[in-house]
Amino acid sequence: MWNSFFGRAFRDLRSSSQLLVLLGISNGGLLAYSDSQADVNALVSESAPQDAQKKKVVVLGTGWAGTSFLKDLDISSYDIRVVSPRNYFAFTPLLPSVTCGTVESRSIVEPIRNIIKKKNGVVQFYEAECVKIDAANRRVLCRSNNGPLIGKEDFMLDYDYLVIAIGAEVNTFNTSGVMEYCHFLKEVEDAQRIRRSVIDCFERAVLPDITEQERRSILHFVIVGGGPTGVEFAAELHDFIQEDLVRLYPTVQDLVKITVIQSGEHILNTYDGRISSFAEQKFQRDGIEVKTGCRVVGVSEKEINMKLKSTGEIFSIPYGMVLWSTGIATRPVIRDFMEQIGQSKRLTLATDEWLRVEGCHNAYALGDCATINQRKIMEDILDIFRVADIDNSGTLTVTEFQDVIQDILVRYPQVDLYLKSQHLQNMEDLLKDPQGNERKEVDIEEFKIALAQVDSQMKSLPATAQVAAQQGTYLATCFNHMEQCQTNPEGPRRFRKSGRHRFQPFRYKHFGQFAPLGGEQAAAELPGDWISIGHSTQWLWYSVYASKQVSWRTRVLVVSDWTRRFIFGRDSSRI
Amino acid sequence: MWNSFFGRAFRDLRSSSQLLVLLGISNGGLLAYSDSQADVNALVSESAPQDAQKKKVVVLGTGWAGTSFLKDLDISSYDIRVVSPRNYFAFTPLLPSVTCGTVESRSIVEPIRNIIKKKNGVVQFYEAECVKIDAANRRVLCRSNNGPLIGKEDFMLDYDYLVIAIGAEVNTFNTSGVMEYCHFLKEVEDAQRIRRSVIDCFERAVLPDITEQERRSILHFVIVGGGPTGVEFAAELHDFIQEDLVRLYPTVQDLVKITVIQSGEHILNTYDGRISSFAEQKFQRDGIEVKTGCRVVGVSEKEINMKLKSTGEIFSIPYGMVLWSTGIATRPVIRDFMEQIGQSKRLTLATDEWLRVEGCHNAYALGDCATINQRKIMEDILDIFRVADIDNSGTLTVTEFQDVIQDILVRYPQVDLYLKSQHLQNMEDLLKDPQGNERKEVDIEEFKIALAQVDSQMKSLPATAQVAAQQGTYLATCFNHMEQCQTNPEGPRRFRKSGRHRFQPFRYKHFGQFAPLGGEQAAAELPGDWISIGHSTQWLWYSVYASKQVSWRTRVLVVSDWTRRFIFGRDSSRI
Repeated sequence: MWNSFFGRAFRDLRSSSQLLVLLGISNGGLLAYSDSQADVNALVSESAPQDAQKKKVVVLGTGWAGTSFLKDLDISSYDIRVVSPRNYFAFTPLLPSVTCGTVESRSIVEPIRNIIKKKNGVVQFYEAECVKIDAANRRVLCRSNNGPLIGKEDFMLDYDYLVIAIGAEVNTFNTSGVMEYCHFLKEVEDAQRIRRSVIDCFERAVLPDITEQERRSILHFVIVGGGPTGVEFAAELHDFIQEDLVRLYPTVQDLVKITVIQSGEHILNTYDGRISSFAEQKFQRDGIEVKTGCRVVGVSEKEINMKLKSTGEIFSIPYGMVLWSTGIATRPVIRDFMEQIGQSKRLTLATDEWLRVEGCHNAYALGDCATINQRKIMEDILDIFRVADIDNSGTLTVTEFQDVIQDILVRYPQVDLYLKSQHLQNMEDLLKDPQGNERKEVDIEEFKIALAQVDSQMKSLPATAQVAAQQGTYLATCFNHMEQCQTNPEGPRRFRKSGRHRFQPFRYKHFGQFAPLGGEQAAAELPGDWISIGHSTQWLWYSVYASKQVSWRTRVLVVSDWTRRFIFGRDSSRI
Repeated sequence: MWNSFFGRAFRDLRSSSQLLVLLGISNGGLLAYSDSQADVNALVSESAPQDAQKKKVVVLGTGWAGTSFLKDLDISSYDIRVVSPRNYFAFTPLLPSVTCGTVESRSIVEPIRNIIKKKNGVVQFYEAECVKIDAANRRVLCRSNNGPLIGKEDFMLDYDYLVIAIGAEVNTFNTSGVMEYCHFLKEVEDAQRIRRSVIDCFERAVLPDITEQERRSILHFVIVGGGPTGVEFAAELHDFIQEDLVRLYPTVQDLVKITVIQSGEHILNTYDGRISSFAEQKFQRDGIEVKTGCRVVGVSEKEINMKLKSTGEIFSIPYGMVLWSTGIATRPVIRDFMEQIGQSKRLTLATDEWLRVEGCHNAYALGDCATINQRKIMEDILDIFRVADIDNSGTLTVTEFQDVIQDILVRYPQVDLYLKSQHLQNMEDLLKDPQGNERKEVDIEEFKIALAQVDSQMKSLPATAQVAAQQGTYLATCFNHMEQCQTNPEGPRRFRKSGRHRFQPFRYKHFGQFAPLGGEQAAAELPGDWISIGHSTQWLWYSVYASKQVSWRTRVLVVSDWTRRFIFGRDSSRI
């Protein structure tokens, strides 16, 4: 095949591809991996894992959580099977860029088999969807949907450990017409569909025999939900239209309108207020209308019906395209699983701080499909007091308290947040009396009062890529140390039982968040409550997103897509 | 929007994009155009064409024929409307590369609005399909299919001149199951579907609970038709599997099989025999099975039924994916048009040598949707003799004959081919007597005998991009000289009537053809009956295909796709 000189030369180049890539971008990605040919050759000669000694791990999902788990997992002691309807990992933070062709869809995906290939074993991947988790029998039912396989679409996988990372689905809040007429932005295919739909609107608007009013309706792009996804899409769309489409459709350029509908009082309301108001002002200058305090009550083929929250007034606006980006909901397979394990009354699947599913042994859940049910300190207050009170005196001295402080801080992260919120330096300060004087010792009632407000600082984690990726890495570390920590537990002291927890509980570290606002401007919340807004922030965004890419291949492609967009603009072909 | 320094700098760069592109590829494309910002700004300030004085030209189709016609047309004296279901031009010779991700689909398309924008007027483009040509009333009925436009999908366009360039559709020869189960390769979307389908086959083949026999069936890729498209796809697929997929699906690498089914005795039978047998030998070495002399009689969900032509034996083979690439057929809208204009007994729409539709005034057809009905010299032999016999003597002298030779050669291109086939230098040699002696003069019967064999050399043109593009350019030149040639005709003498033809008839110039065979090898027929086969021909192929790109944007993208493939391989994500 590769007999020629050129062939061989390029083949060699390919195996040392990193050397070729001369772009000066740091390889700081959470998931960055080395694409060396050596791994592959090792893999080719090995057969599927059959070792009966190894624990069977089934991983559901190849999003941020599942992929970062697999990436960091030492597979030598496990028999791993991965099930996902997508045979690739997608860099979802760039999905809004894909909707307008700023970045191509193929530049943000990497085959999962490339990511999970390992030197010391084989990870088996099945492109299928898990349709049922059978918790009692420790197995999952999976279904392949990609072609005729009569009678063989379904298969069962047994597991010793189950890692659930299948993400969430779109939340329509049961609004009528949303499923039929709205676009979503969760998958790569969604972004591709949106891109075609935007072009379609322009092509429809320039057809003959249409009134100007109809052209205006067709060119009305509506975004429901003023969160980061909706806002970034609005900004991308505005740039796409102003920088590229108006050149090609000059007759309708004055008829285009973009509207963002937000039920709250401000867009980007999970961000710092300065970012939120900067975004609103920028959108106003750009002519993007922001309708706040409005709730969508229904979508029909050509109109969106809304309710003004303040007055209760119901009105409707015609549209050409709607993006629905209002939040996430639990998938049916998870709901069914929750019924089985006694979580039917909860809204989302609950895990403990070690990401173990509550009520189901040996199942773990991470990413958007689960929430951590953080233990309240007040639920354990008696046990904490009992364990800390070594001499069983019925009172806690400062020295006794100091002995358990570290374990409390690790086990109950809300304590740390509470201390910060109260501007307290040390946890010992909690034991001071109401007048602020130090006390030698406290009894159980005084101890309860001292910690009474701590649980008010509990926060659930946002459904972001950052959280999911950190959870995946965390869980991989736990799995890698499973045996070792069985004998040498490294977690905090158990207050309700004896001994120590095997592992440290999961702790999320927030590295900040971006909000690209179009026109080469972005806003960012950085660690330490820093705010950065403007053109330089956009360049920071480019650097961070390039560095976080999952492989050198996608990194090169994304950067070249950005470059191509600067030089040639975005493509408006309807494919 | 573009307030920042960086923004402005890049904006400036964009308008002089050619300067940036440092790749040393000659801009020799048939359709190459300059993407300068100046044109665009001119266009933006103008409104739709409304000039009642101008003749209305409706162009159907934006493939090779339609696009090259529009590209070269001087629109200052016409009111042009273009109708096509695709708002882009696709560089179709690279479609086989798109099926396996060697080149991305977006790299081979260019928005038609970019190509047809002009300095001296506006070309109106409608993304719609022509569903009926109303020849009697000189109008076309068009239908837009891209979204809800209730009651406004259909619209009429009047024309003074109609240019039909809508190509052809797939020819299934009414074989059962082909439409349901086979892939085709005519559109960009087809190529994208094939790419997903190939990945699907591999993902299905590695699912659990499947027998080895089933895996073999799923990984059996069948190509029906051993023409250039089928052969190039087989070669691309073989490379994709061997260079990329076996690394990721090592457990099934020995189960893959590619089969090419050809009804004739050889694949590539329109090429020189040396190319054909080289291709067969290379495929044999690569393990691609070539089944010649087989006709497919039916396709079911899992099997292809075939008939061995030599014995009449019917047998079937299981498959995972089939590509059907056996030829082209006339589209229904053209069939309907042919009924209207008295061509109902013909298989394809016939035009004369000036691309005018026979039986329909002011309609032109070019590209795959029509064939040129070349006039036989024997049909006009009496008129030719009459015109040439100036002195009405009833005999033709050599001098008299010489006077019309040029007109005959232009009007009847088969004469030239006949002279070459007989190794004759001059047309006068035709007048020699059967013994090869020169004659002073011939009578009508002798003249008929002299030219009797000429028409056997008539050849219909192949349905290729090269023919379509040359026809488009030719027709644009005719349109540009329409008024001028009305008074000063530039064509050959009319034999049946008096005077001269307005234009020279269309004459195809064959620049050769390529057949990429995989493994960085290609075969080429070059002008002058040269044959070139091997690795260097593949590099020639790269150069020619890069230079023929329709814009600098696609040229850069295609070349960077090739480079990316050399470095990182092809992507196997199922999107």
